[in-house]
Formats: sequence, C-alpha cells, structure tokens
Amino acid sequence: MSITGKVYLVGGGPGDPELLTRKAYRVLDQADALVYDRLVSQDIVDIASPGCTRIFVGKASGNHTMPQEEINDLLVKLARTNHTVVRLKGGDPYIFGRGSEEALHLSQNNVPFEIVPGITAAAGISAATGIPLTHRALANGVKFVTGHGRGDEDLDLNWKSLADTQTTLVIYMGLGKLQTLSDELIKAGLSPDTPAAAIANGTMENQRQCVSTLGELPDAVISIDLKPPVLCVIGHVVSLAHQLNWQGLIYEDEDRGAQEVKARA
Amino acid sequence: MSITGKVYLVGGGPGDPELLTRKAYRVLDQADALVYDRLVSQDIVDIASPGCTRIFVGKASGNHTMPQEEINDLLVKLARTNHTVVRLKGGDPYIFGRGSEEALHLSQNNVPFEIVPGITAAAGISAATGIPLTHRALANGVKFVTGHGRGDEDLDLNWKSLADTQTTLVIYMGLGKLQTLSDELIKAGLSPDTPAAAIANGTMENQRQCVSTLGELPDAVISIDLKPPVLCVIGHVVSLAHQLNWQGLIYEDEDRGAQEVKARA
Repeated sequence: MSITGKVYLVGGGPGDPELLTRKAYRVLDQADALVYDRLVSQDIVDIASPGCTRIFVGKASGNHTMPQEEINDLLVKLARTNHTVVRLKGGDPYIFGRGSEEALHLSQNNVPFEIVPGITAAAGISAATGIPLTHRALANGVKFVTGHGRGDEDLDLNWKSLADTQTTLVIYMGLGKLQTLSDELIKAGLSPDTPAAAIANGTMENQRQCVSTLGELPDAVISIDLKPPVLCVIGHVVSLAHQLNWQGLIYEDEDRGAQEVKARA
Repeated sequence: MSITGKVYLVGGGPGDPELLTRKAYRVLDQADALVYDRLVSQDIVDIASPGCTRIFVGKASGNHTMPQEEINDLLVKLARTNHTVVRLKGGDPYIFGRGSEEALHLSQNNVPFEIVPGITAAAGISAATGIPLTHRALANGVKFVTGHGRGDEDLDLNWKSLADTQTTLVIYMGLGKLQTLSDELIKAGLSPDTPAAAIANGTMENQRQCVSTLGELPDAVISIDLKPPVLCVIGHVVSLAHQLNWQGLIYEDEDRGAQEVKARA
C-alpha cells in the first residue's frame, strides 16, 4: 500500500467565499477528494471541481457527526488513493478546529500534509460588524475561548484570567452556555455593564447581530431567538459598534422585544 | 468638495501573497490609490495596477513613520479624488493594526469605508510552523497581546491574567521586550520550562524560528541574532512543534551556539 497523496488541512474562513485565501482557493480547485463539515458553506464546497469526491462528515439531519477517530482514519485512507486531499474546516484549522489532532494522526502515519490558514470567525465578524478586536485605550489584547464543553460537562475555564477589562474576550460557540459564561465572568470581576455583542452566521447573507451588555446578553439573544453558530464579543470595543457600523447593520437589541427577524441592510 | 471614493481598510495577511483573501486581492487590483506600511511585502504591493498611486507611510531608512493623524487625514483627502482607496496593513486591520482609529476618523468625516479582514500573523505562523494555537488538553484558548510599548514606556500588561497555563499566549512585536516579558510571566506563575518559540518573518522565504522555553527564549533569540518582525508563542502547544513540522523547518536552538543562519528546508 503506497502513499501517494498529500492532505491539505485548509481553513475555509468565516463563511463568505471571498474571504477564503488565494491558497485555499487554489488547493480546493485542485482537490481530488474533499472532506468537509457543517461549518463550511455550500458556495465554498462548490469551488471544488465536479470530478472531486466530496465527503460530508458533519451533522446531517438525524445523523451524528463522524467521530474524530474515523475522520483521522478516513484522511489517511484517502491519501493512499488520491493525489490531493483537502480537509476543509470553518475558520482556521488551528484555532478550535481540531486540525492539529488530524495533523498528528497524519504525521504518525507518514502521510505528507500541509496547513493552509483561514480567517478565523473572530476576525471575519470583527470586519463585518466594524467592532475592532483591539483599540487604543479600550483593549490592548484579545482572547479566544470556546463555550462549547465536551458533552454535558461544565465549562472548564479560568474565570479570573478571563475577567480582564483590558482584553477583548471572544467566545466561539458560546450560545448554549451564555448564561453560565455571563454569571461566571461577573462573579470573577467583570462589570455587568461591560458592552457585549452576539453575532449569528457572521459574514453570511443571513448574519444577525445583537448588542447588549454582559449582564443582559443572555436574555437578549433569547428575546430575538438567535440560533447557532453564534460568536460573542465581550469588552469595551463593543461600544464602537454603532459608530463603526459601515454596513448599516441593524442591531436587534435597539428595539428589545421585537421578534421580527430583520435582514441585513 | 464632494466625496466620491471609498476607503478599504485591508488586511494584507502575514506576508505570503497567497495568504491574501480573494476579496483583498480583488480590491487591491481595483485600487486607484494605495497607502501601505512597512509590514506589507513588495509582492503584495505589486498586485495593484501600474496606474495606481502608491503612498508608503512606513519607516524608510533614516525617516520616521508618518504620524497616525497624518495617515488619517491622507485617507480622507484621497477619498475626495479617487474612486477606490486601499489602506493596506500587515495581518488583520482590527488586530493591533490601528485600523479602527482610521475607521473612526473616516466615519467622523463621512467617508464611506469597508473592512476586509486578513490572516493575522499568529494564524499564518501557526500554519507555517505547524504549532497549533489550541489543542485538546494543551490549550483551550489563545490570547494575543503586543509587546510593543508606546515609546519607552513599560509594558502595561495584566501579568496575572496572562500567566494562564491553559492558554496559548502569542506576543506580537515582542522581541525588544522579551526579557521583561519572560521575567514577568515567570514571576506571575508560569513555569520557566513552559515551551516557547520565536519566529521571524513568518510565512516568508526568509522565515527563521527557534524553539526553547520561557526562561531561555530571551537568550536563545540573542544567540541566533533573530531580527524583527518577531512573533513569540508561549504555551504547551509549542511542544508539538517538531512532530507537526510539515515544512521540515530547521529550529536553530537545536544546535545552540551555532551562529550560522540556516535557510528553510
């Protein structure tokens, strides 16, 4: 069994196909086999040629996601029969993408691989909303964490470290545990009045966003019925949202209680 | 005086022109005027058409960088006489790029603008070296800070918050203050044995990298005479550097004391 192919672990970016890197586009265009999951938009999957074998490993209706171990084995197997295998992930493969687990498995099986970075959701959404991740006097750094515990486990986060007023805190997949996140951050010292935003489907046509405060964000996202994938941004930079709103986005919190789903301007 | 143009604040990514987004490439290709600084590579500047007015606002030999206020005013002025003005920055405009200060000035002067995100240096270098920014059991989050104080001021960082063993810490422009950074992080509780890496000119042909520990990194970068721009990565994820080294990079610390500059494999 001779290994002939190479596996590219590719960041698909935040959703908008124009936010793919040129390298990601090139590799995708050359792919003989493509393995992708649910956070990758169809427009991006369609970049691969018609002859490319497409394998969806995300959650389809009624089905479960393919276990990580099976994905790892699948990549090794595909590399034995394909020249160019693309493993496409939402955002960046090395930021909450489990890309490094796949890379380790490829390395251990002597399969050549390459990492192609992607625009992570935080940067894509920052640009789309105009909310900067750092800004003089408001935030001298930014931190990304995930609000998605494994299974039903509690979130294992260092709350004291997270409650830093000088840092913008970005929470990936935080919708399900937003009340806990809000409570714990306030308990650890952040003011409930800290500006906070939640953005669903960032950079996509169906993007929706809400600006509130750390204390009120959990209720706000429920009142407008925000659905995942949602990214939350907590910190003083969120106070710039309206002034830097270059797309003319409608922030649904401005009319709290309105259940109507508003489109992007 | 009628404003006709739009200013695009564009992330130029970590250096490799293939790591530009497709949107950044398109906008750059359409630019009538281009304002760029020293962290943008010449290959990227060359994407703009020959007829595009190019204005360099970075540090040239013997000259100083154009003050931020002058850059702000320049962008407003250019938008009055050009259809498409591109303000190109290294990395992402909203992560340590001062892009939001320029956006605020444009907003205050009623100049239409748009933000185009870029691959931030941390993600570019993570992909290039193979060192992931998050990894199960090694890091459940990542934090970006800058080690570049304004002028000779001391670094104003929350060391206790930074000294979190569960978080990968990425320091942009940290070379000049690396000894202080190392000392303060150790004082705040991080082990001197925490794996740490320094990478110069990440993603470029002349990339150089060094893997060491938090305690020894300041001496290691001096021993191999590493020059800026340098990004430092501190945390357990750095322990994967050799196993995930898909490019066959030479880590110069492996033969400490060797002053020879080694090329990328």
